[in-house]
Amino acid sequence: MEKKEIWLESLITETPQEGRELAIKMSRKTIAAIQTDPEVRKKLRPDYANDTAQLIASANVVAIEFQTIAQANNYWRK
Amino acid sequence: MEKKEIWLESLITETPQEGRELAIKMSRKTIAAIQTDPEVRKKLRPDYANDTAQLIASANVVAIEFQTIAQANNYWRK
Amino acid sequence: MEKKEIWLESLITETPQEGRELAIKMSRKTIAAIQTDPEVRKKLRPDYANDTAQLIASANVVAIEFQTIAQANNYWRK
Amino acid sequence: MEKKEIWLESLITETPQEGRELAIKMSRKTIAAIQTDPEVRKKLRPDYANDTAQLIASANVVAIEFQTIAQANNYWRK
Amino acid sequence: MEKKEIWLESLITETPQEGRELAIKMSRKTIAAIQTDPEVRKKLRPDYANDTAQLIASANVVAIEFQTIAQANNYWRK
Amino acid sequence: MEKKEIWLESLITETPQEGRELAIKMSRKTIAAIQTDPEVRKKLRPDYANDTAQLIASANVVAIEFQTIAQANNYWRK
Repeated sequence: MEKKEIWLESLITETPQEGRELAIKMSRKTIAAIQTDPEVRKKLRPDYANDTAQLIASANVVAIEFQTIAQANNYWRK
Repeated sequence: MEKKEIWLESLITETPQEGRELAIKMSRKTIAAIQTDPEVRKKLRPDYANDTAQLIASANVVAIEFQTIAQANNYWRK
Repeated sequence: MEKKEIWLESLITETPQEGRELAIKMSRKTIAAIQTDPEVRKKLRPDYANDTAQLIASANVVAIEFQTIAQANNYWRK
Repeated sequence: MEKKEIWLESLITETPQEGRELAIKMSRKTIAAIQTDPEVRKKLRPDYANDTAQLIASANVVAIEFQTIAQANNYWRK
Repeated sequence: MEKKEIWLESLITETPQEGRELAIKMSRKTIAAIQTDPEVRKKLRPDYANDTAQLIASANVVAIEFQTIAQANNYWRK
Repeated sequence: MEKKEIWLESLITETPQEGRELAIKMSRKTIAAIQTDPEVRKKLRPDYANDTAQLIASANVVAIEFQTIAQANNYWRK
């Protein structure tokens, strides 16, 4: 039986920048959960990496994910 | 009389990753509530699974659903 | 004089799943408030029910409405 | 000198349904603030009222506005 | 050396309606920060002012900005 | 070994306007994280800077990022 990869242990990060990286990772993992074939994803990559409308739409997703992460980390206030 | 399936008992999950899975499930259930024919949904699947713009739009929905779930779980803070 | 239908008495629901149903209802009622002709709405239905991009956009609306409902219900925490 | 119309005195409404109506009004007032010519707006109306993609996009705006109104009203909890 | 214009001193406004105006201003200032040439912006204006899809997308931005402003003002509750 | 640039030390800014600038920076950094080739990004720039639909979509991203920053700064209330 295939063991499921655990890739999201926590929303807590050391720094805001690590929070950004996690937001990007979360967005990518959603895409991978819908289009499960890594070969297809690789082939599709130029479709969005060279299309500004899709890059902007991706940034929208990351902004939402980051908002959640920032809330979880109480905005990394000291 | 058809008995309605109960698929959402709670927003509480054990881990953030289970929260991601629930977010994806919630998104899919909305689609199924609008396009109720499972055969049509199956036929439509390649339309979005191979279209990066639609994959990104799907990730936007999942990000919003996850935000709600994360709030419900108090961000799984320990 | 036409009496206005009261369709939204409260945001409080018994269960999360009823919250989902209310979110879908709220989305539909907005459409109906903009396109007020039920015959036109019926005719338009196949336009989005068979278009994955529009199904995903609909799911985005439902996700936002549900977030509001979940907050109103304090996430149905016990 | 033209006196500016005051159309938004408060975000507080008696009922959730009045909150929905205010959300729709707020969305429309934004459009009117950008496209200030009422004749043009009237001419443009069929463009979106018969286009499901635009109806759904409108519902997205209303959902966001309503979220703000619901928060302002503490979700009309009794 | 060019002195940068300070256009956003505060998110606090006297009334909700002034909050709406600030939300529209914030949206416009973002566009101006990306497309910095005022002549180009002027030329582009008919592109969106006569396109309902873009008017609706603009209203989406304003709704998000207003949500932030409303939170900042504690919803102008008395 | 390449040292990673640290560009986001904190979400705290002195003023709301600096918060706007940070929101724009965050949006741009996401694009740069997805399309990592600076030459390609430069070439793509006219694609969105002259397309009002994409300018509006960019403003949507900035609005979400700013909402997070405003929350982090407690809306710069005095």
